[in-house]
Amino acid sequence: MCLNKNERIDMLYSNDVKIIQSAEVFSFSLDAVLLANFAEPIKKGSGRVADLCAGNGAVGLFLSSKTKAHIVEIEIQERLADMAKRSIKLNEHTNQMEVLNIDLADAYNYLRKDSFDTITCNPPYFPNLNDSKKNENPYFAIARHEITVNLEKIVEIASGLLKMNGKAYFVHRPERSLELLTLLQKNRLAPKKIQLVYPKKEREANMILVEAIKDGHRQGIRFLPPITVYNEDDQYGSFVQEILYGGKKAE
Amino acid sequence: MCLNKNERIDMLYSNDVKIIQSAEVFSFSLDAVLLANFAEPIKKGSGRVADLCAGNGAVGLFLSSKTKAHIVEIEIQERLADMAKRSIKLNEHTNQMEVLNIDLADAYNYLRKDSFDTITCNPPYFPNLNDSKKNENPYFAIARHEITVNLEKIVEIASGLLKMNGKAYFVHRPERSLELLTLLQKNRLAPKKIQLVYPKKEREANMILVEAIKDGHRQGIRFLPPITVYNEDDQYGSFVQEILYGGKKAE
Repeated sequence: MCLNKNERIDMLYSNDVKIIQSAEVFSFSLDAVLLANFAEPIKKGSGRVADLCAGNGAVGLFLSSKTKAHIVEIEIQERLADMAKRSIKLNEHTNQMEVLNIDLADAYNYLRKDSFDTITCNPPYFPNLNDSKKNENPYFAIARHEITVNLEKIVEIASGLLKMNGKAYFVHRPERSLELLTLLQKNRLAPKKIQLVYPKKEREANMILVEAIKDGHRQGIRFLPPITVYNEDDQYGSFVQEILYGGKKAE
Repeated sequence: MCLNKNERIDMLYSNDVKIIQSAEVFSFSLDAVLLANFAEPIKKGSGRVADLCAGNGAVGLFLSSKTKAHIVEIEIQERLADMAKRSIKLNEHTNQMEVLNIDLADAYNYLRKDSFDTITCNPPYFPNLNDSKKNENPYFAIARHEITVNLEKIVEIASGLLKMNGKAYFVHRPERSLELLTLLQKNRLAPKKIQLVYPKKEREANMILVEAIKDGHRQGIRFLPPITVYNEDDQYGSFVQEILYGGKKAE
């Protein structure tokens, strides 16, 4: 098989996707699963989908079960991009998917502007402040902190790559939601749907999912029903159970 | 007693507030109760609180049980302002509360700028479009549509009346939340807390509550636990039961 040292294969049971992971680098988390669940990628085979800040390619792989469109995963870290490429092979999606191991800032050297129907992005959540504590492992630090790219640049590139009326999907932390919403609107992306994710009943939200449409009307944002991750017994609630395991119950 | 023709007295059981209402004019609704519950008015007797677009004064009266501060209710409609005045008497709050029957646009002729600690507002929800259907009853039309004032003006005046670090509390419809958040930030009001109100499980939000601080830091907005109004038996859920009835059960 195609596994390197200290790698393992994780499953997303709800769609039988296999993902190569390693404890040495950033693994996908519930954020990626919720983003892929929230996104409504263009369905037709001639469509084009891009996942920015793709990491080991989890979001793109989850999306592949929702669309026939071509999916491009953009990831700056070579080791993660390599894992993503091997996961695509492992899932026999080489006809539908590809990985670009590039700096997002160089995207227009590789991809045409105004050519994508759907963009997804699970960006680094934390600003790259001089005094912020970062993981000493650079794989984690780059995935979590805005070291190689920041939200302003990501939103600008997402908008540039999208066709008119194309849709962008972001997951982020609630404390940066105003910044995200402001940046979207500055970059021709009209926020249309928001879904808040709460860890548990009576707790504050710890994730926000946003859909925006390029050159869409500014009016009419909707807040979808809230997602509560854990129930009162600290087990995954039925919504998360379903998107993680589908009909199948994990052992 | 102080009731006019076709008026009645409604109770908010949770705090024993009595409110003069009439089917001929706009009555307070759950929005006002949730706004007063969400708001954290300054507590001390030397503090100053203003409720803008006060209608028959429900929000101010509900707040009176949470603070010793002086409360000014501003309402343009004479009939509603008169009902608000009589409700203040009815609740024996004439030392703490007053009603200004003025156009909000003239607020600075009556109230000092930068002099309030807390502002609340349950504004007209609908833009005054030429083609929008409005109630033929002008009391309802003015309460629901931006006929005498619009959100831009309301936020500008709210900010002008507030002291530095004073807090503003708004309730609005989710579809206008981006506009509200943008206007707040344009007017030195940093949104700090948001609470979404969902009518029922699996339904989209139909109300948004926002707290903003004048000249506050732009970072760090929080999304409080969601409020779900009705449970699956179409009865008020425990949260709404509590703020409507407190320990007492309505007959």
